Amino acid sequence: MTRRPTPAPHTPATLYLSAPEAARLIAAKGLPACLEGIADCIAADFRRWGDFDKVPRVPSYSPGGAIELMPIADDATYTFKYVNGHPGNTRQGLPTVMAFGVLADVATGTPRFLSELTLTTALRTAAMSAVAARALARPGSRVMALIGNGAQSEFQALAFQHLVGIRELRLFDTDPQATAKLQANLAGSGLALTRCTSAAEAARGADIITTITADKARAKVLCADMVGRGTHINAVGGDCPGKTELEAAVLALARVFVEYTPQTRVEGEIQQMPADFPVTELWEVLAGRAAGRHSADEITVFDSVGFALEDFSALRFMHAAAVALGMGTPIDLIPVLDDPRDLFALLRPKAAQWPAAARPMHTSRAAQAEPA
Amino acid sequence: MTRRPTPAPHTPATLYLSAPEAARLIAAKGLPACLEGIADCIAADFRRWGDFDKVPRVPSYSPGGAIELMPIADDATYTFKYVNGHPGNTRQGLPTVMAFGVLADVATGTPRFLSELTLTTALRTAAMSAVAARALARPGSRVMALIGNGAQSEFQALAFQHLVGIRELRLFDTDPQATAKLQANLAGSGLALTRCTSAAEAARGADIITTITADKARAKVLCADMVGRGTHINAVGGDCPGKTELEAAVLALARVFVEYTPQTRVEGEIQQMPADFPVTELWEVLAGRAAGRHSADEITVFDSVGFALEDFSALRFMHAAAVALGMGTPIDLIPVLDDPRDLFALLRPKAAQWPAAARPMHTSRAAQAEPA
Repeated sequence: MTRRPTPAPHTPATLYLSAPEAARLIAAKGLPACLEGIADCIAADFRRWGDFDKVPRVPSYSPGGAIELMPIADDATYTFKYVNGHPGNTRQGLPTVMAFGVLADVATGTPRFLSELTLTTALRTAAMSAVAARALARPGSRVMALIGNGAQSEFQALAFQHLVGIRELRLFDTDPQATAKLQANLAGSGLALTRCTSAAEAARGADIITTITADKARAKVLCADMVGRGTHINAVGGDCPGKTELEAAVLALARVFVEYTPQTRVEGEIQQMPADFPVTELWEVLAGRAAGRHSADEITVFDSVGFALEDFSALRFMHAAAVALGMGTPIDLIPVLDDPRDLFALLRPKAAQWPAAARPMHTSRAAQAEPA
Repeated sequence: MTRRPTPAPHTPATLYLSAPEAARLIAAKGLPACLEGIADCIAADFRRWGDFDKVPRVPSYSPGGAIELMPIADDATYTFKYVNGHPGNTRQGLPTVMAFGVLADVATGTPRFLSELTLTTALRTAAMSAVAARALARPGSRVMALIGNGAQSEFQALAFQHLVGIRELRLFDTDPQATAKLQANLAGSGLALTRCTSAAEAARGADIITTITADKARAKVLCADMVGRGTHINAVGGDCPGKTELEAAVLALARVFVEYTPQTRVEGEIQQMPADFPVTELWEVLAGRAAGRHSADEITVFDSVGFALEDFSALRFMHAAAVALGMGTPIDLIPVLDDPRDLFALLRPKAAQWPAAARPMHTSRAAQAEPA
């Protein structure tokens, strides 16, 4: 225990940010600042779309839901997210969506940052929605319908308040308790809240309509006759095959914007439409290569399914924030080797051969369990 | 700090096994027992091949190497591995291959086990090679050439000793220091070791030839004129596009067995061969659906690239072993929520709202960094 070997030249330490620490980080910086920071990262990364090695996410479907991996890389940084979607989880006290992710160096493959992403995904999804709305909604939009008042609804509400300028929310959920929870969480936010008894009532007079429901089914949460001229629709809940929220007629009326076409054709609202249904990728609008909204009368839809690049942006924001605040814990996910060609050295029977830097996480529980 | 809320009905705690703890686990059980246990899991899982939702691994290639995700699932369990391959890493003191992985519940998407897989991958690759050789090499094989004496060579040597019955190794590496390291690590193993000055010399008289070199290039480590009749070739090193070890003529002479054809066509030795070059998937042999070796004269090749199912088997072995030995540390990768629909509760300004069970990893360092 007293010998401290010289650390290897490059120690592959991974910084770990747990769910409670991520919450403390966000509380420390303030949620609006985090939403703004993640939105800035997303906008900057989407503008350099061509720099990224992109693939549709890799799903594993089961009767109860889906587990997905979402990798992406530029020349310097690789990230991936693990995320599930199990609508029945809440009945067992578990979140519908749970996630974590890793940021790694492309040059060596070293995983640098392992982070919870359950909470962070809610922030990045809301930040992405706000980035799209800033580009697509009518300037001066002040009223938003929020249809679906579940786990992500507060984040959407606050992102649209702080990043888009929304002042009034019209709330609807098939579960009145969900709306009550949202109202309680937004008390003191400064947002005017109107509780509605139907999606149609919520949509009435809204500049922006956000749909973020969790049912894994073909639903018609929003029909064409509920959507006024000039509305921007932020369609967030439909995000896997068989799960949609909009009546097809809404899409037929609108100009539709997507994150990454190959993925959205399979997972998004446009899975209801022909394979050649015209869409515009949002990055083109952000980069000035395509027009956003054409007129104040046009209906725009952001058919959001969530793309790996948003998690890349969120992970680099959270990593930088954790480093700046001194948060997170170094873990020894990767072994430290004196000679990297001598992996077997890890098994040679020498006590205390581990560099001290490699074991900050060895708790007393682990030490007790250590075999003789 | 004194209030201990009732835990949520299903707490999504994840058991974390670090690299040092994995090494202690393997040392505690003994390496031969771990190789045998993982081989048993692999053989059992390969026999029920049809139970798995399989995809080729998802690579991200860069000039220096590759980062890959390897997901797979059956009805109950989902696993994935993150693994890189960067041949230049050793010059920076880093392993060529670093890996970690997760085992999750299909029913809810909860990640149950996060483990280092750098060390474990070496065991599972060797165990897989031994499972294949037991099915394909001539009975009574006693002499193995081991060409490539790098980080994985000890594991191959010991797997073939304990699981296949190899007694003598003929060693060759272009780097004499690698061979010296291997010899030192195998001293006392009971294996007879013969150091050779070329691959051809090593191959002479061998029942089994294992090639496990790390160069990322089209190499001809083994040529047809070096391979005697009846030899089984365990070709492990060639595992990505552009990286091969065998002269094409060796493949033309042999019957070739693969893990998962869609992946091996792209990554394996057979990337050199026409797209319809005949191969047999190893699971068919293990399940009794296809013949292995036809005769004592036949040359067989196991064109191993590493498949996600092997990591599934290794993760379930390590998870069970960690639970049985009380090793590993619960971490709060996923937040614990009193109400799973109220994710926002994590950000409400209440001190000590975290269930005590959710924070075993909060070290004093993290606590110091906690903002006010």
